[in-house]
Amino acid sequence: MPVNLSAPVAAQLLPVAGVSLGVAEAGIKRPDRKDLLVMRVDEGATIAGVFTTNRFCAAPVIVAREHLASGKAIRALVVNTGNANAGTGEQGMIAAKRTCAELAKLMGCEAEQVLPFSTGVIMEPLPLDKVVAGMPKAIANLKSDNWFDASQAIMTTDIVAKAVSRQVQIGGKTVTVTGMSKGSGMIHPNMATMLGYIATDATIAQPLLQQMVTEATNKSFNCITVDGDTSTNDALMLIATGQSGAVIDAANAVSMQTVISEVAIALAQAIVRDGEGATKFITIQIEGGKGADECRKIGYAIAHSPLVKTAFFASDPNLGRILAAIGYAGVADLDVAAISLYLDDVLVAEKGGRAASYQEQDGQRVMQQRDITIRVVLNRGLVNATLWTCDFSYDYVKINASYRS
Amino acid sequence: MPVNLSAPVAAQLLPVAGVSLGVAEAGIKRPDRKDLLVMRVDEGATIAGVFTTNRFCAAPVIVAREHLASGKAIRALVVNTGNANAGTGEQGMIAAKRTCAELAKLMGCEAEQVLPFSTGVIMEPLPLDKVVAGMPKAIANLKSDNWFDASQAIMTTDIVAKAVSRQVQIGGKTVTVTGMSKGSGMIHPNMATMLGYIATDATIAQPLLQQMVTEATNKSFNCITVDGDTSTNDALMLIATGQSGAVIDAANAVSMQTVISEVAIALAQAIVRDGEGATKFITIQIEGGKGADECRKIGYAIAHSPLVKTAFFASDPNLGRILAAIGYAGVADLDVAAISLYLDDVLVAEKGGRAASYQEQDGQRVMQQRDITIRVVLNRGLVNATLWTCDFSYDYVKINASYRS
Repeated sequence: MPVNLSAPVAAQLLPVAGVSLGVAEAGIKRPDRKDLLVMRVDEGATIAGVFTTNRFCAAPVIVAREHLASGKAIRALVVNTGNANAGTGEQGMIAAKRTCAELAKLMGCEAEQVLPFSTGVIMEPLPLDKVVAGMPKAIANLKSDNWFDASQAIMTTDIVAKAVSRQVQIGGKTVTVTGMSKGSGMIHPNMATMLGYIATDATIAQPLLQQMVTEATNKSFNCITVDGDTSTNDALMLIATGQSGAVIDAANAVSMQTVISEVAIALAQAIVRDGEGATKFITIQIEGGKGADECRKIGYAIAHSPLVKTAFFASDPNLGRILAAIGYAGVADLDVAAISLYLDDVLVAEKGGRAASYQEQDGQRVMQQRDITIRVVLNRGLVNATLWTCDFSYDYVKINASYRS
Repeated sequence: MPVNLSAPVAAQLLPVAGVSLGVAEAGIKRPDRKDLLVMRVDEGATIAGVFTTNRFCAAPVIVAREHLASGKAIRALVVNTGNANAGTGEQGMIAAKRTCAELAKLMGCEAEQVLPFSTGVIMEPLPLDKVVAGMPKAIANLKSDNWFDASQAIMTTDIVAKAVSRQVQIGGKTVTVTGMSKGSGMIHPNMATMLGYIATDATIAQPLLQQMVTEATNKSFNCITVDGDTSTNDALMLIATGQSGAVIDAANAVSMQTVISEVAIALAQAIVRDGEGATKFITIQIEGGKGADECRKIGYAIAHSPLVKTAFFASDPNLGRILAAIGYAGVADLDVAAISLYLDDVLVAEKGGRAASYQEQDGQRVMQQRDITIRVVLNRGLVNATLWTCDFSYDYVKINASYRS
């Protein structure tokens, strides 16, 4: 069960003028399941995105990058679940391009104005005919007030859908930002198995929009990990329709960035809270490092350690495993005697060993919680970093040992 | 259950003249369990070792390094299980030094001539009085024909003991090499949670012995991983007693190295076969790389992927997960279209996707086996690397969620 996370409430998801969403049950992997999403973007919108760094990136990632780079105005996005169209070689490229061409025909635009996204099992051919057959149904129910259904249509092993809205006043106009994401396994920085779509009705020129999506990603999706696996298909897209009348420039870019990053962080944390098999949500704060790089190295060593993650699953304050992970993180000149380790407000270790004040029952109390913060104070510099991860349970193994069947 | 691995047969473990071993039940963590080992090394022996690279290395590791560096002839080794004496700060250092001093008193040597080793739970104070109280009993049963009992005394979560003997003819003399190891979790390169002791009755000068133990480690213990956690306590020690009369020099060093490496590889593979919760033993061969570094990066990305490991547990040829791991291994200019992926003799993927000849039933057949080879041909250079790992099962989580209790 997701950790302190409920499904979004449909009425709380605000439409973004200029974006409409339609879903269909295309039967891509299983029948009777929303598995196809079409998003229409009205004329005048800008769009920017970030993609997986995996060298085996999926065909739709390659095609989406090409179409974004073509400079043509993007008019539609199409997302299928049930098949990642990754590790599918030339056939996969043909299928991704055909997906765009078929949707373009139905929407009255060019293939280059469509961005394709896929998520699901890797190295299986995309059932293109099913995707194409589902398109008219998805187009038929396109509407702006449809983020709730859309967030359900992009789920794979997710237990709950993930979507959130925020509003901000900019230049006397109300600007809406609504976003959704999916993902719960193969989650690691450099983009997770993760699809995210955030739309706003502000006007934001493309170069600024690209900066904003990159900055929001670095603060959110690039700070989470479930299992350390970086997917072949990750993408986060940011759409600005301009229909609110608010125009973003240097003077108000920070306010806009703040709300976009807030939405991205909420969506990224939701992915960890719904991490495959997760029973605990763990915030890892590394403080007082010499640089962001070493803080993240230490944070990820802790976040990826199966021994740390299973101890949290067991609510067992076997906290020496955290010290061990700090020790092997690869920070060569680390002085372990200078480090303090806290579990929430409990000082666990200092001077290279257990703190004199530490009592097992205090650690035990914190370990029982579902939300826990591990705080590592390095005492060697001024830089901090925060990551989010979850524990490692029987259910993670169960889900991933049976995902294809 | 260990994967194609049985406990050693006592009669097949050959004594090494000049080394005697004694064990005791010291009740360090639990009663009625062999948990203390004393090894006596006769005068004239040389000894060399490699230790964990973890910055939070345990107190006994620091002390053993110091005593080895002192240049004094090592006369005894003492190993306790049930407590790692790691993350124990200054108290831990005092306990490790006292362990040496107390044993030295009983053996009639100096504290600097004793090397201490500990393995077990981290960040708990070492129960020094129990260790010391057990010493006379261990000394009382010192004998050279005692490798079987000794290999049992160093076990923690190991299911079976690990020990092996080899003999080789050098200069007309029969040289014996016997070794033992322990470890089944927190296993990662740069030495695993892992203790290993190999002894031979050849004469090998210390500088050459240090080269030999380093070379053997690089070919064996530094090529295995169970969970990617590098322990605080790893050590591999190589003892040469000289009592066979065979003297190792430049002319015969290669024969000697070969047999020492063979013993080290057998002990390292045994650790993986007995990996916590392991049901499969997986050999990962990376071929045709530009350098050893990139081959190992790709090999470890596969070996550490929880998604790959759970697919092997399920005997599910969900082999796209291997492609994804290759893709995120961090080899920046990797051409994925040039790569061929084999499962044993079955060609699974080439040209960036599933091989035309691949049939699911062939992959399924190999996945059912308990010993499986993943072969990745990079087609970009001349360097190969081989790693060994195991799958990831419910039992891994179970063992590590309950290890302290």
